[in-house]
Amino acid sequence: MNDGASNEDAVVKRIAAIFMPEVKNPKEVFIGDDAAVLEPFAGQVLISTDVCVFGVHLDDSLFSLEDLGFKAVTSALSDLAAMGAWPRGVVLGVSAPPGTDLDALHHGAAMAATLCDVPVVGGDVTSSRDVAVAVTVFGECPGNGAVLRSTAKPGDNIYVSGPLGRSSAGLRLARAGVSLSDDLVVAHRRPFPRLREGLAYRNGGVTAMMDLSDGLGLDLHRLADASKVGFVLDHLPVAGGATVAEALAGGEDYELVLTASDEARLFAMCDARGVTRPLRIGTIHADTAVRTLNDRPLTRQGFEHQL
Amino acid sequence: MNDGASNEDAVVKRIAAIFMPEVKNPKEVFIGDDAAVLEPFAGQVLISTDVCVFGVHLDDSLFSLEDLGFKAVTSALSDLAAMGAWPRGVVLGVSAPPGTDLDALHHGAAMAATLCDVPVVGGDVTSSRDVAVAVTVFGECPGNGAVLRSTAKPGDNIYVSGPLGRSSAGLRLARAGVSLSDDLVVAHRRPFPRLREGLAYRNGGVTAMMDLSDGLGLDLHRLADASKVGFVLDHLPVAGGATVAEALAGGEDYELVLTASDEARLFAMCDARGVTRPLRIGTIHADTAVRTLNDRPLTRQGFEHQL
Repeated sequence: MNDGASNEDAVVKRIAAIFMPEVKNPKEVFIGDDAAVLEPFAGQVLISTDVCVFGVHLDDSLFSLEDLGFKAVTSALSDLAAMGAWPRGVVLGVSAPPGTDLDALHHGAAMAATLCDVPVVGGDVTSSRDVAVAVTVFGECPGNGAVLRSTAKPGDNIYVSGPLGRSSAGLRLARAGVSLSDDLVVAHRRPFPRLREGLAYRNGGVTAMMDLSDGLGLDLHRLADASKVGFVLDHLPVAGGATVAEALAGGEDYELVLTASDEARLFAMCDARGVTRPLRIGTIHADTAVRTLNDRPLTRQGFEHQL
Repeated sequence: MNDGASNEDAVVKRIAAIFMPEVKNPKEVFIGDDAAVLEPFAGQVLISTDVCVFGVHLDDSLFSLEDLGFKAVTSALSDLAAMGAWPRGVVLGVSAPPGTDLDALHHGAAMAATLCDVPVVGGDVTSSRDVAVAVTVFGECPGNGAVLRSTAKPGDNIYVSGPLGRSSAGLRLARAGVSLSDDLVVAHRRPFPRLREGLAYRNGGVTAMMDLSDGLGLDLHRLADASKVGFVLDHLPVAGGATVAEALAGGEDYELVLTASDEARLFAMCDARGVTRPLRIGTIHADTAVRTLNDRPLTRQGFEHQL
């Protein structure tokens, strides 16, 4: 029993203060009530959730709690980018040992949310042995237009939103002692979701899309499985400083892989929106067993979480 | 590198199978893509998130992983009940040590979701030392009608949706060896959110509302603080088998506390909807310093999470 403000309430208040600058619409209620209240969404409601554990999803000997908060938010937002949706809100569920610098973690999350122009509308904090952040993101998609991974068609071109392998190259470099501010290391610890790109691709007539969280060599198989098709790749865009293996099997690039039948329309929309054109890497094949890169079978390879 | 279906994909498939019976609308996409796609919500979008850690929020020596999954979902849904909202979806972020019976946990969550008629639309599973479940719930509230905790007015009556102290009495009994199927023990391990009640209260003109997760002796102070009012309680409905201390300071009852100025309207709506009328416990007072139960000061007392 105590007569002052509770410890829990004080923590909620301090966390709310970190995110409060993000409250823009006076009709909306974010942190402080039982639930956040958001103004109506336009069209479909998109929802995705991701759990990041410090030491599992991010090396806790090299990177900071601020990095963890940042990456947890942007990697979750990447799932909305992959649907061509626009984010409306983020909530964080944090569990951490007593004494953890929760402010650092929340500052990282707030920075990511600000950069992506999406409010953090709620959260929860509890104690546990590991530092884990469960991030849930919500977005809207007008016109029933969410882009699935299961709708690629034979003959469609396949693209990626940028060169691959940056994140795992960055992790390798950080482990070798390269500066945390190196471009590739930043790509690993502060990935940025392709939200504007996803929206432009959707409006440019993309037929299927997903984000590359586990590597092209695994995720493209997932897209092909879901669409019941195969693929023939004739080009692998390897990022400068990355290896072919990192480009194929390195996870966490958070680039988008997409398919489209009308390249002129896709590129015109990208140009109109000021978004970099995606890079063509191959073609969707009708035979689900055909899965090749430069005429050789592309086996499943990528980052797998051990459960 | 492997050529078969990945371990991660197999786990996702098995979990999806547990929840799949819940997919009812063919236009919606739940588990299996980057994000879940839900049909448009009516009015405001309500969002809340809660993290439950096995051993912290539920005694892992007495209760099961199925109980954890069940309680994590229903306690999160209680936050929507508290706003007078109706749930549209649930996502689960699970972290657990390798070898944990994730199926049991997910079966408990699926059972809770089914009983509340809300689909589980997505999730994530990762490894960590503790078993933690982050549950995020989304609901809709037509007509901009979400009920806040900050809008109680002097003179309003105060009610609770049912007698208090059941959950902590149940925990005490379970620790003393009473059967897991005892009513009070069930109230602790399988709480049920007052969704129908919250909706009826909202339509019955409630002025402010919140759920009792940490005990009336703490949560009513929070409602009074948010509304900048005091309260005078003249009745404490103690559940059969619970003590006065459990009714006041025992958490996790997930009953609703609400205020209303028009009792006839409130009760008429409850009767029309077949919902039990709430129990009147006192009156909102204009002076924020006046906070009494039976003419004696009611100090803050309740369950506080240690952070």
